[in-house]
Amino acid sequence: MPLHQQNFSRPLSTVAIFGPGLIGGSLALALQDRQPDCRVSLWARSAASAARTAAVFPQVTCDAAEAAAGADLCVFCTPIGAMPALAREIVPHLSAQAVVTDAGSVKGGVVAALEEILGGRFVGSHPMAGSEKSGIEAARADLFEGATCILTPTARTDGGTLTSVQGLWSSVGGRLVEMSPAAHDLAVGRVSHLPHAIASILVDAIARHGDGAEALAGGGYRDSTRIAAGPPGMWSEIFLENKAALLSGLEEFSASLEELKTFILSNDAPALESFLSHAKRVRDTLS
Amino acid sequence: MPLHQQNFSRPLSTVAIFGPGLIGGSLALALQDRQPDCRVSLWARSAASAARTAAVFPQVTCDAAEAAAGADLCVFCTPIGAMPALAREIVPHLSAQAVVTDAGSVKGGVVAALEEILGGRFVGSHPMAGSEKSGIEAARADLFEGATCILTPTARTDGGTLTSVQGLWSSVGGRLVEMSPAAHDLAVGRVSHLPHAIASILVDAIARHGDGAEALAGGGYRDSTRIAAGPPGMWSEIFLENKAALLSGLEEFSASLEELKTFILSNDAPALESFLSHAKRVRDTLS
Repeated sequence: MPLHQQNFSRPLSTVAIFGPGLIGGSLALALQDRQPDCRVSLWARSAASAARTAAVFPQVTCDAAEAAAGADLCVFCTPIGAMPALAREIVPHLSAQAVVTDAGSVKGGVVAALEEILGGRFVGSHPMAGSEKSGIEAARADLFEGATCILTPTARTDGGTLTSVQGLWSSVGGRLVEMSPAAHDLAVGRVSHLPHAIASILVDAIARHGDGAEALAGGGYRDSTRIAAGPPGMWSEIFLENKAALLSGLEEFSASLEELKTFILSNDAPALESFLSHAKRVRDTLS
Repeated sequence: MPLHQQNFSRPLSTVAIFGPGLIGGSLALALQDRQPDCRVSLWARSAASAARTAAVFPQVTCDAAEAAAGADLCVFCTPIGAMPALAREIVPHLSAQAVVTDAGSVKGGVVAALEEILGGRFVGSHPMAGSEKSGIEAARADLFEGATCILTPTARTDGGTLTSVQGLWSSVGGRLVEMSPAAHDLAVGRVSHLPHAIASILVDAIARHGDGAEALAGGGYRDSTRIAAGPPGMWSEIFLENKAALLSGLEEFSASLEELKTFILSNDAPALESFLSHAKRVRDTLS
């Protein structure tokens, strides 16, 4: 995972963002803020969504072909499942130099599908930013400030494509990391998709058996379950798209859980404290 | 769990706090702030701990008998395991009207032990406040502001004892809740001890198998694992003291995990989305 700290200073001239949710909306606001000379348009599928979007970011269109035709960089911020059809829709309208990226949370399948349609002008991205909130109303110009932005170039990616997309995320404050689509899905399955699943399981288990104990909740429960309030449709799609990595993560989690249970069952205070100390040491390395 | 919103206005005159950690230190600072006429002393076991404490709160003593003798309210903020011996040490020195409470995270065993020594002048408390930080250096005068403070009176508790201890937590901003020691341990086992165990397990599982994936972590991993940085010795004691409730919680968690796994394995998107929607609805009821 080489970390790129270079300054990608080539300014972007026209960016079309497809999908005006939290990520797409925040990217539009961030570019407006950081690159005032860059023309940014946001594509929304429906007139209703476009109207909602226009209240936050006025340059909205429902015409994908038009948005794509004028852009030197297209960014897909829709649900992953919608991306291949969108790519097929815009590909006839792209200029020769246009570059395409996405912001999906799973990379393997979708990168393969989009490379098939778009070729070397596409490279996958995943800005590790977000929140339990969703929708254009939650968009913030500083969402990507300091966030890890993973790029997943392959042997097919053109050099110019990578440079443009590095410039995009770098210009909105991202910390760039490169890895293969497969390595991305394994790592992000552990550090993002697994914690989301665990938070939802925790809320579910307590709600079923806790007799309203949530009413007593302190900061620990609140923090550890915050992400369980994320959009269910999006997370369901992510879990199924990254099925293998998430299932491995859940197995590993269950194995650690069984180990902890053994220490508790056998009243093994030293082993229990050593387990918790190890977790603390690891967690303390994050700020 | 009746919630008491009355104003307990009887001022406290002299409070002795035993154990100058995050909770004891914060209680001392909060009383100094909110009840300037109240004399507060902090008892530390060792001279080294007393010296460290004095930098934050100057009224420190290592003489438990002396601290107890002058107090109308004694609050045990030590580890739970140290409380019975401390109670035996101070009981000969308590004035006839003196009241005793504690701030331990588990109530069943320790309430029974302390009632045996102290009788009706004791009632258990548990302020649901804290953080992954520990020690006097992390103490804050506003730690209990808005925090749920659980009191666990029993048939042995004197009425005056309960009123005094209600007044204590109410005066520092706590929201009072009363329940039996056994009901406390069940509920808090679910909503506090279980989330802590789960956060530690999550950190452990990812650290063992994630190949350094933590370096990519976004806000989700950070929030959901924050409490895993709590003091291992304290949490090991809590887990063993509340063993039965925690083990039940871990069983229930595993059952929910298996259910989610089934939905993923069978690509059952509607069931998966419904599971995540239920968790979101429950979590959304908390602010």
